[in-house]
Amino acid sequence: MPRPLRQHPDRLFPAEPNARAAARELYASVKALPILSPHGHTDPAWFATNEAFADPTDLLLAPDHYLYRMLYSQGVSLERLRVPAHGGVAMGDPREAWRTLAGHMYLFRGTPSALWLTHVFTEVFGLDVALSGETADLYYDTIAQALATDAFRPRALFERFNIEVLATTESPADSLNHHHAIRDSGWKGRVITAYRPDPVIDAEHEAFGASLERFAELTGQDVYDWAGYLEAHRIRRAAFAEAGATSTDHGHPTAATADLSPTDAEALFRDLIAGDVTPEKAELFRAQMLTEMAAMSLDDGLVMQIHPGSFRNHNRLLFEGYGRDKGADIPTRTDYVSALKPLLDRFGNDPRLSVIVFTLDETSYARELAPLAGHYPCLKLGPAWWFHDSPEGMRRFREQTTETAGFYNTVGFNDDTRAFLSIPARHDVARRVDCAFLGKLVAEHRLDIDEAGEVAADLAYNLPKRAYKL
Amino acid sequence: MPRPLRQHPDRLFPAEPNARAAARELYASVKALPILSPHGHTDPAWFATNEAFADPTDLLLAPDHYLYRMLYSQGVSLERLRVPAHGGVAMGDPREAWRTLAGHMYLFRGTPSALWLTHVFTEVFGLDVALSGETADLYYDTIAQALATDAFRPRALFERFNIEVLATTESPADSLNHHHAIRDSGWKGRVITAYRPDPVIDAEHEAFGASLERFAELTGQDVYDWAGYLEAHRIRRAAFAEAGATSTDHGHPTAATADLSPTDAEALFRDLIAGDVTPEKAELFRAQMLTEMAAMSLDDGLVMQIHPGSFRNHNRLLFEGYGRDKGADIPTRTDYVSALKPLLDRFGNDPRLSVIVFTLDETSYARELAPLAGHYPCLKLGPAWWFHDSPEGMRRFREQTTETAGFYNTVGFNDDTRAFLSIPARHDVARRVDCAFLGKLVAEHRLDIDEAGEVAADLAYNLPKRAYKL
Amino acid sequence: MPRPLRQHPDRLFPAEPNARAAARELYASVKALPILSPHGHTDPAWFATNEAFADPTDLLLAPDHYLYRMLYSQGVSLERLRVPAHGGVAMGDPREAWRTLAGHMYLFRGTPSALWLTHVFTEVFGLDVALSGETADLYYDTIAQALATDAFRPRALFERFNIEVLATTESPADSLNHHHAIRDSGWKGRVITAYRPDPVIDAEHEAFGASLERFAELTGQDVYDWAGYLEAHRIRRAAFAEAGATSTDHGHPTAATADLSPTDAEALFRDLIAGDVTPEKAELFRAQMLTEMAAMSLDDGLVMQIHPGSFRNHNRLLFEGYGRDKGADIPTRTDYVSALKPLLDRFGNDPRLSVIVFTLDETSYARELAPLAGHYPCLKLGPAWWFHDSPEGMRRFREQTTETAGFYNTVGFNDDTRAFLSIPARHDVARRVDCAFLGKLVAEHRLDIDEAGEVAADLAYNLPKRAYKL
Repeated sequence: MPRPLRQHPDRLFPAEPNARAAARELYASVKALPILSPHGHTDPAWFATNEAFADPTDLLLAPDHYLYRMLYSQGVSLERLRVPAHGGVAMGDPREAWRTLAGHMYLFRGTPSALWLTHVFTEVFGLDVALSGETADLYYDTIAQALATDAFRPRALFERFNIEVLATTESPADSLNHHHAIRDSGWKGRVITAYRPDPVIDAEHEAFGASLERFAELTGQDVYDWAGYLEAHRIRRAAFAEAGATSTDHGHPTAATADLSPTDAEALFRDLIAGDVTPEKAELFRAQMLTEMAAMSLDDGLVMQIHPGSFRNHNRLLFEGYGRDKGADIPTRTDYVSALKPLLDRFGNDPRLSVIVFTLDETSYARELAPLAGHYPCLKLGPAWWFHDSPEGMRRFREQTTETAGFYNTVGFNDDTRAFLSIPARHDVARRVDCAFLGKLVAEHRLDIDEAGEVAADLAYNLPKRAYKL
Repeated sequence: MPRPLRQHPDRLFPAEPNARAAARELYASVKALPILSPHGHTDPAWFATNEAFADPTDLLLAPDHYLYRMLYSQGVSLERLRVPAHGGVAMGDPREAWRTLAGHMYLFRGTPSALWLTHVFTEVFGLDVALSGETADLYYDTIAQALATDAFRPRALFERFNIEVLATTESPADSLNHHHAIRDSGWKGRVITAYRPDPVIDAEHEAFGASLERFAELTGQDVYDWAGYLEAHRIRRAAFAEAGATSTDHGHPTAATADLSPTDAEALFRDLIAGDVTPEKAELFRAQMLTEMAAMSLDDGLVMQIHPGSFRNHNRLLFEGYGRDKGADIPTRTDYVSALKPLLDRFGNDPRLSVIVFTLDETSYARELAPLAGHYPCLKLGPAWWFHDSPEGMRRFREQTTETAGFYNTVGFNDDTRAFLSIPARHDVARRVDCAFLGKLVAEHRLDIDEAGEVAADLAYNLPKRAYKL
Repeated sequence: MPRPLRQHPDRLFPAEPNARAAARELYASVKALPILSPHGHTDPAWFATNEAFADPTDLLLAPDHYLYRMLYSQGVSLERLRVPAHGGVAMGDPREAWRTLAGHMYLFRGTPSALWLTHVFTEVFGLDVALSGETADLYYDTIAQALATDAFRPRALFERFNIEVLATTESPADSLNHHHAIRDSGWKGRVITAYRPDPVIDAEHEAFGASLERFAELTGQDVYDWAGYLEAHRIRRAAFAEAGATSTDHGHPTAATADLSPTDAEALFRDLIAGDVTPEKAELFRAQMLTEMAAMSLDDGLVMQIHPGSFRNHNRLLFEGYGRDKGADIPTRTDYVSALKPLLDRFGNDPRLSVIVFTLDETSYARELAPLAGHYPCLKLGPAWWFHDSPEGMRRFREQTTETAGFYNTVGFNDDTRAFLSIPARHDVARRVDCAFLGKLVAEHRLDIDEAGEVAADLAYNLPKRAYKL
């Protein structure tokens, strides 16, 4: 007899009745607001072609490193989960992979993945029993059947999910053809891009050389010359803005910025182009480029996002066998106070610039980021991110940033996901957790309910709209 | 129709009824205890001259960097807030500045500034509607009118606030004339000083040279000679003690201490005096001087306070334009384990020495500071400080220090403020948050209510009295 | 009139009634499960000889650095507490030492020591008034009287405590004679050892030379030769396994691992043996030996425990006067991401290896350890440890690790204690705190009660049994 599956209407609210009542009231006022998803990693090809999703495993398991990393940590091989080897294609039976997931669902107890999956299973597919070994085939068949219908094609789901804007992330070396196809199709869904220049900025990136070549092709610039390289950025930024982008995104190992003289910057660039790449030079160049990007943002108005602090591809064997983004990125201690100073010394007091900073090092919330964002006009705090995109993680974010930075130096929620179907689930969790936090403030007489209501709407909708210029 | 303003009698207590009832009972037993304010930055001239405060803006906004930093972070210029430029005087209409504050009050939702201001507005000025653009002039006029009356002069407020002792902080280069004037006036209010020698210890301080000159004048010593320099400290410490001081205060960038041989210490001092100042030498000298100060404390009994971990004047342009203490100090990661070892190796086991350590790096609470204070006889923990002087910050302090250091290696609350009118508000918040913490322990059967009552009184009154030898 | 002493049946559960009801239900289902104590520091001689414990002070106070460090921090000398000087024997009257403890019990308010002592006093000795100066003699006499009876001998208490397995910790230089005696005695209690090779691995350990000599004697190997040294480890590991050991334990200053070539490893070893010991070489050798130990674990199946991050013997004078383990070890900031990489690059993907990692740096829970354990097949997270073995510490552990690593990459509770009588108290606190955490998840509709029940039993019993191969 399978366990019933349902979502309690009061989930994630405080247990204490007064705080819960306040949270419930606040949530009721924001739950139906449209979704703004200004930062994410869905595939624009889905919306360009609007083809049906292949099967449950390829839609829900194979692209979701939150899921397969957990099973991998318990000794399940990636092959069994249909994660394709580097440069290869997914092997094995998708149904078998799904059964493997189903048999390990207990691993996700207490994790946000469990919350998100439950939302997808109940709200998107109407399932009402829990996923387990026993129900694996029922799930597989139900979901596969749904995916074959028009109502589950990408655009239909986009509309059903009440998404007002969805941003994807592309490299400057991307042609943006899917985005152009979306626009040319006449479909009214707003899918925009974001400018993520890491592959042409990070000389240690495995695709640096190839990306620069493509960068040159797409811009007609001599990108191996410092002036041409900068001009190529300007050209691609303009093309991205034309394709709807309102932001850039920078996923560096650290938050280091630099403000070299033009001569020194050019000399450094020449070294890297000449193949004289040391870790120190690569780091300094990434640092310098953040300041260059900030200068360009002052010209073209693109909002800057800095996402530092992940040790990418920590598992050597896995990286060699499966490539990047396979759940083996590990956060590291991250400094902001010294790291951001060169950029802030140059542009920090300019309210026309907007730099949204993220962290994987929660110790920086109260110690560094809230004090910085609570002072510098150009800085805003991105939401609890990645490993911290979770009820406890979001609670810590609010508890540790609000008292110094307030709510109005934050920018609402980012789902940052490749898992398209989980977008409504993720935004729902975020809205609930924010309302839970606000409800507690109300119940402890630290904030009036009417003010809390304004904050709830701002966090769910107004702040991301303003911060990302949507 | 303006929003009503009131303070709920149960504010800051847990929402859960049993914990709230315990908190309420505990708070009732401590709320009327006299205020001990052993560490702060009010201006002794106020109590020496007892002149009326100028206007609402100059009293409540211009000196409060908690307030103007938040508005500045949202693009409001400091000029509009009547913050004077470096070496200049406040410009512009104070009423206009007040209106600007009023129009941005929503920024403070969920912050301690909102709690403190509400307390000042309701308790001190009897206002009963919220501050907003609409009520800005009502506020301005009501407060200005009150300030013109004798009941709102500094000494009258001091008495009304039930302050038993108030410590200010002065440099060794200060003549202490205001403190002498207070004593000579015959007024019975106890306003004492504290010895803060940073300007004559920190060779990187912009006032180092000028402070040394004044240090020489006031002591008659050759302060450019190591023996004379140390003797000058002894002389000023004695003069401070004579003016009521029971403590010294040290606001260094790090917690580094050193225990150089007399020869090496003297050589280092000579280098600095000769203008051979490197960051390393300046840091080592500050480190050495903490140990020298500890040695003097063993002689004269002054309690030592170490306040490390702030990157002062982080915003270069703001520092150049407006000087220090303008809301642009940013906390940094701070080590205590290695940093304090030289001082502790020398004096750590001497229970006659009392060193109160503060931090802006909350990660050190459970990991470093509670274990150190829970072992070394000379060490005590200062309260949650500055950015962490807030309900969540104080809660984290208790949650992260109590289990290892207990309550009795802590020293009660410090308001650490320049905002005189907020002193009762700040102590009230601290008492409420401590009682909320204790109330939760009682409700979870981790502490008996009678023991909790003793702890509540100790935290509010007995511990600071003993720790600061008041 | 002494204060009554009792343990509330709902202690440590959330105050909110729904969460409390769930916690109570979960706890009821696990409270009677046998105790598995896979990591601790009790003395195997107790169970080998089964002699009566000497007196209350020598049993409860003198070996418990949690207790005497707190009194020491308040100026009570170790002599007064019968802590023996280095190489000496305990001096002074045990009853007087007990009275000193009794008079300072208020220092432990809000600490886990208070919880543990209350459990021991009420459950083990049946006392019903609180310990204070007034009741010190009553306590002393009651406990002394009980200890003289057969029911309070070590084996009787072991059985009464419902301990299924108890692991002690021995050096490779230990003959394991007590463990052999226990087995030869025919007593059915399962007391096993664990292999802690620090004294023969850490060239900076004060007993390094003597331990190596003994290591040679016990193994018949030339331990001053690299191959002989490694073989000696294999021989002692086998002997420990024979005496029941299922794990090794490594208490290094950092989590550094290394993977040197055999040639480089041998050269490094030779330097150390030749007395060419620098801090860097000692650190690198410890790092290399963790990887060597992992390789041996793959052969012999012993589970590896890494306990890094304590600055041992921080108080120089105390170390000189009293030796190690006197409450003067202070946690330090600890990196895992880079530190563990060499070992993980070599063995991280092998699910046959089991490495349990502990930390004293809570900042690594969410940032480093949960992401690492939530990915690498070989890694599991040890419980909240030492200073963090406390209600708030355990709560933070669950809140900060569960969302990324889940419950199933953790291994249940370790009591890690020298205080034998506190073992049931410590496991009871851990079970209550875990059930409180689960109860809150249930009350907030984040986990079903039936799933929570499975998790509660897994945390209390099944996970440690599996993780430690008991």
